[in-house]
Amino acid sequence: MTDTLHRTNTTAVILAAGLGTRMKSQLPKALHRLGNRPMINHLIETARHVFDNIIVVVGPDMPQLEKAVHPYKTLVQTERLGTAHAANIARDYFGTGDVAILYADNPLITAETMRNLLNARHNNATLGLLGMRPVNPGKYGRIVEENGRVKRIVEYKDATEQERQIGLCNAGVMCAHADDFRQWLSSVKNNNAQQEFYLTDVVAMAASQGNVQCIEAPESELAGINSRSELAQAEATLQHRLRQQALDNGVTLVAPETVFFSTDTVIEPDVVIEPNVFFGPKVTVKTGAIIRAFSHLEGATVHQEAVIGPYARLRPGSVCEAHSHVGNFVELKNTHLGEGAKANHLTYLGDASIGKETNIGAGTITCNYDGVFKHQTSIGERSFIGSDAILVAPVTIGDDTLIAAGSVITENVSTGDMAFGRARQTVKAGRGLEMKQNLKAKKEQN
Amino acid sequence: MTDTLHRTNTTAVILAAGLGTRMKSQLPKALHRLGNRPMINHLIETARHVFDNIIVVVGPDMPQLEKAVHPYKTLVQTERLGTAHAANIARDYFGTGDVAILYADNPLITAETMRNLLNARHNNATLGLLGMRPVNPGKYGRIVEENGRVKRIVEYKDATEQERQIGLCNAGVMCAHADDFRQWLSSVKNNNAQQEFYLTDVVAMAASQGNVQCIEAPESELAGINSRSELAQAEATLQHRLRQQALDNGVTLVAPETVFFSTDTVIEPDVVIEPNVFFGPKVTVKTGAIIRAFSHLEGATVHQEAVIGPYARLRPGSVCEAHSHVGNFVELKNTHLGEGAKANHLTYLGDASIGKETNIGAGTITCNYDGVFKHQTSIGERSFIGSDAILVAPVTIGDDTLIAAGSVITENVSTGDMAFGRARQTVKAGRGLEMKQNLKAKKEQN
Amino acid sequence: MTDTLHRTNTTAVILAAGLGTRMKSQLPKALHRLGNRPMINHLIETARHVFDNIIVVVGPDMPQLEKAVHPYKTLVQTERLGTAHAANIARDYFGTGDVAILYADNPLITAETMRNLLNARHNNATLGLLGMRPVNPGKYGRIVEENGRVKRIVEYKDATEQERQIGLCNAGVMCAHADDFRQWLSSVKNNNAQQEFYLTDVVAMAASQGNVQCIEAPESELAGINSRSELAQAEATLQHRLRQQALDNGVTLVAPETVFFSTDTVIEPDVVIEPNVFFGPKVTVKTGAIIRAFSHLEGATVHQEAVIGPYARLRPGSVCEAHSHVGNFVELKNTHLGEGAKANHLTYLGDASIGKETNIGAGTITCNYDGVFKHQTSIGERSFIGSDAILVAPVTIGDDTLIAAGSVITENVSTGDMAFGRARQTVKAGRGLEMKQNLKAKKEQN
Repeated sequence: MTDTLHRTNTTAVILAAGLGTRMKSQLPKALHRLGNRPMINHLIETARHVFDNIIVVVGPDMPQLEKAVHPYKTLVQTERLGTAHAANIARDYFGTGDVAILYADNPLITAETMRNLLNARHNNATLGLLGMRPVNPGKYGRIVEENGRVKRIVEYKDATEQERQIGLCNAGVMCAHADDFRQWLSSVKNNNAQQEFYLTDVVAMAASQGNVQCIEAPESELAGINSRSELAQAEATLQHRLRQQALDNGVTLVAPETVFFSTDTVIEPDVVIEPNVFFGPKVTVKTGAIIRAFSHLEGATVHQEAVIGPYARLRPGSVCEAHSHVGNFVELKNTHLGEGAKANHLTYLGDASIGKETNIGAGTITCNYDGVFKHQTSIGERSFIGSDAILVAPVTIGDDTLIAAGSVITENVSTGDMAFGRARQTVKAGRGLEMKQNLKAKKEQN
Repeated sequence: MTDTLHRTNTTAVILAAGLGTRMKSQLPKALHRLGNRPMINHLIETARHVFDNIIVVVGPDMPQLEKAVHPYKTLVQTERLGTAHAANIARDYFGTGDVAILYADNPLITAETMRNLLNARHNNATLGLLGMRPVNPGKYGRIVEENGRVKRIVEYKDATEQERQIGLCNAGVMCAHADDFRQWLSSVKNNNAQQEFYLTDVVAMAASQGNVQCIEAPESELAGINSRSELAQAEATLQHRLRQQALDNGVTLVAPETVFFSTDTVIEPDVVIEPNVFFGPKVTVKTGAIIRAFSHLEGATVHQEAVIGPYARLRPGSVCEAHSHVGNFVELKNTHLGEGAKANHLTYLGDASIGKETNIGAGTITCNYDGVFKHQTSIGERSFIGSDAILVAPVTIGDDTLIAAGSVITENVSTGDMAFGRARQTVKAGRGLEMKQNLKAKKEQN
Repeated sequence: MTDTLHRTNTTAVILAAGLGTRMKSQLPKALHRLGNRPMINHLIETARHVFDNIIVVVGPDMPQLEKAVHPYKTLVQTERLGTAHAANIARDYFGTGDVAILYADNPLITAETMRNLLNARHNNATLGLLGMRPVNPGKYGRIVEENGRVKRIVEYKDATEQERQIGLCNAGVMCAHADDFRQWLSSVKNNNAQQEFYLTDVVAMAASQGNVQCIEAPESELAGINSRSELAQAEATLQHRLRQQALDNGVTLVAPETVFFSTDTVIEPDVVIEPNVFFGPKVTVKTGAIIRAFSHLEGATVHQEAVIGPYARLRPGSVCEAHSHVGNFVELKNTHLGEGAKANHLTYLGDASIGKETNIGAGTITCNYDGVFKHQTSIGERSFIGSDAILVAPVTIGDDTLIAAGSVITENVSTGDMAFGRARQTVKAGRGLEMKQNLKAKKEQN
């Protein structure tokens, strides 16, 4: 009984009004982050590949959340009267097809599970429902079946001892036709201890009118996030997925459990990643590159056979071309490091462009900031920047140049030239020992 | 049958004479560290909240241990003749109330468990005893009960096959009235294979005179530490406790298993801690601060919304005011970083005071040490310290100053002034390429 | 029925021709690394302590592999016709004693297990065979026994449901006399679906002629490595072994799971290693040294009571004498740091020798590289190198010298002398504030 019309006009309603009291946070729960991305954006990113429309129900005074959700439609639940009340706020946006109710604090649900839910609904169910079998079912609501058919959800506190033995728990997510949902939501009552309108009441209504089908998915995918502990567990689940993806894709992770990815990290096969590497958002690493221990990358592209780290920090806008090296205690920001170029020790390159095969000496610093503006440093190919050089931007240094160690470079240097900017050495004979003796004498007096 | 007198004159006797042969260490076992604190100090810190008096029995030639225990009373067990012998050394200090015998190599016992033991003793027991049910009971002594009452401890090597099936194991810790302990200890004999006086013999004596009650606690709390492996396991237990505390308190730990706390670390709610952060002793982090990956903090206070790291090292005496930033490869020691001030790259600030909104350029170094004395650097508000500046202390730099990049500053700079201390740039045309060609030619000759 | 002759002329044939398609790698599988060493070298290192001769069968076009195996004999399997075919290629090198067939992708097999296999063969077996009981036997071939004797190997895909219930799985490794192997290998047929010659067929042949004995070893030791996931699991097994060795040897690992060793790392008792430390090849750390968090060591020797880190990087050729200190963001390469000498902050010392008790100031850099050659820096004892000094090698600095902060040192400094190489400070009154105001005005105009 598939229905092409419904399938092509599906809507995901995401309930995101929760304050997350147990998070003990000023931040709305939906904005807490997993894999360097707010929970809500995980869910939207997955849902937008499955559903035609997305509506987010937020709480009052959550401008940050509305901004994070942009450009998707938000509706404000001004009073917190329960999940059915929250879903009902979106009723005018349910459209004419199927509607799934999702939760911002269930952000790791996969597209596959969402599609299974939609398919279940289309194949033979008035209502599709997600269930899981947690190791410790604890206080989750239980899914009550009779003769193999879902009858209703019983909340833990209302459950009999026998019902509490049921392993199949309600994940809260459900899917039905828009018209059915509108009808059921109008019928939900708040005659309970909390005086709230519970979405779970819809299940019994659907079961009385037709078939309710439960789609099971792993606990790790459906477990709710209500505390920092659960947030950390979800992060662990997400990282496990991302690490496994990388391994399956032909990446060597010496110690997978010590590598942290963002959801958008792209690592090509035959990349080697040593222990303790952190990938912030928007990083791409090409085949044959090595990311050594204790490195930290954000917004960076690392090309073939480049060697990064240990202790390298690549900040947004960093591009390391093939065979380039970025060594220990080196920071790149908005910098293009040419093919085979090297910056191996204690260096800061900001807003810079470094030509092919150029060697940046230890301790080199680009002075890209004057307190108000940022300025560019451009260095040509095959140049040799001596140790501890200070490049005061804006400045342009040509190809095949030599900058003497310890120089302050404030003016452009032409191709083939050598530049100095340092004082000559002078010596005071015997003064080294003398000063030390004086200091020691002074110390003894004290 | 509570006894207020006894409750108000309680004594903890801590046996700490062990050499810890299996640790393969020159250090007394009690001085090995957990959470950056010697084991013995963990136990004392917990015990001093529960008991009125603390006595520590140490071995001969353990001056470091006596120092660590200061100001608590120590007694020296000159000959190692067993636990009953060690406890008996303290008999004159048992006082008039209840006495508990604790062990330096059981340092993770909680105050709650200690109180449960004291309460058991007061409510209905001649002797209270701590027991645990290890996953692998192995060679622990077993607690033999008859008709639900503790009768005696049987050492593993003396136990029948049936007794070895007992899951309840002796943790060694016990509590009784001082007078009872004195009487029992006088009666313990050393007629065993090792010719030692075993404290466990006291249990059967107490059982013959009255009621012995066993208080159970988790293995993770009571497991003894006799090897580096067990030390590492205890550290893991401690870190797990500290991480869970932080999470429960509303702190985001992206990867809890990679964050190491000291027992006195204070982290306020809504702090975010990225992976791989190490907290040494005496650190406080206030609400809204972010501690980025690979940071290392000791003796530091980080105020609201400050951003620390990645790769920031805060050493003792560091105070980072609200909204300040400490970036990568930056070390602070005994330094006050004012509100909104920034030190973002490759910098060492020691014995310094930095005013509000001042920007410390990349590579800045305070020369605070002359080989004998340490000197202060003071920088005012809204100043701009150019990159790679060298500030030779003692030196005072005013508000709204500008220090040119690469300058060596040896004299004070007044408010509003600009200071230089660097050589002018000179250029040798064509010399860059020429020198490179010369070097290459030389290489080819070799 | 031991046979001294056979025991003294044993041969290990290592099959290493695998491409490792599931690794998704351009690198031959045998060259993927564990503990900073190619798999094949692990196996050779273990085998050379047990066997008299080692032969490696490689695939065509694997020059890197032949190089890694050097000086051991390699034979090329030009066509991939199965394991029996690969083994048979080495038949002329089987010698006159016992032969064991090993696999490059089983690199964690221990010498003890290899010896057990040889002993089994000598004591009562025509063929010795290694077996394991994996938690998930999955698609491993099963070892079929009848009346307690091994009869044959059945491949998973050919196994009956009953045979698939067998927990004992074939690890592939086997040992027999050279003559027997030659005979059996000549009889193996390729009349199977893959048209390959399977070494496992040898088992039934041996069983029909005599006794086949299965030696069991743990799954962690025998599990094959066919994917990056399995490589990561093997690395975890190896690291677990190395960490346990260190702990057993009296080393404190605060968080063992965060410390990464190479197989040749030597750590003496009473060394303390903080969390997140990486040991590359060829590192020795002597008693009483402390390796602080986030340190990275390769090819380095750290002597008694030295303190390394946090964030110290010791590269090959680093020697840190007793009581020396290497602090944060400091890199040493091919450098000798004398007794009690200190390099505590933001420093690069390359190709240098530092005398006893000398203090290297923050930000010091040796300019050891001129773009083509590397040069030496030599510093005497009890000298004081001021912060941010630049030492342009080759340069020699005597004992008891003082180098002023921020100096560029290009010429030798004699014992007792003080050297300067920096510009004097000049001040432009009011110019600091003025420049800032100008910049801000400019910004407002934009």
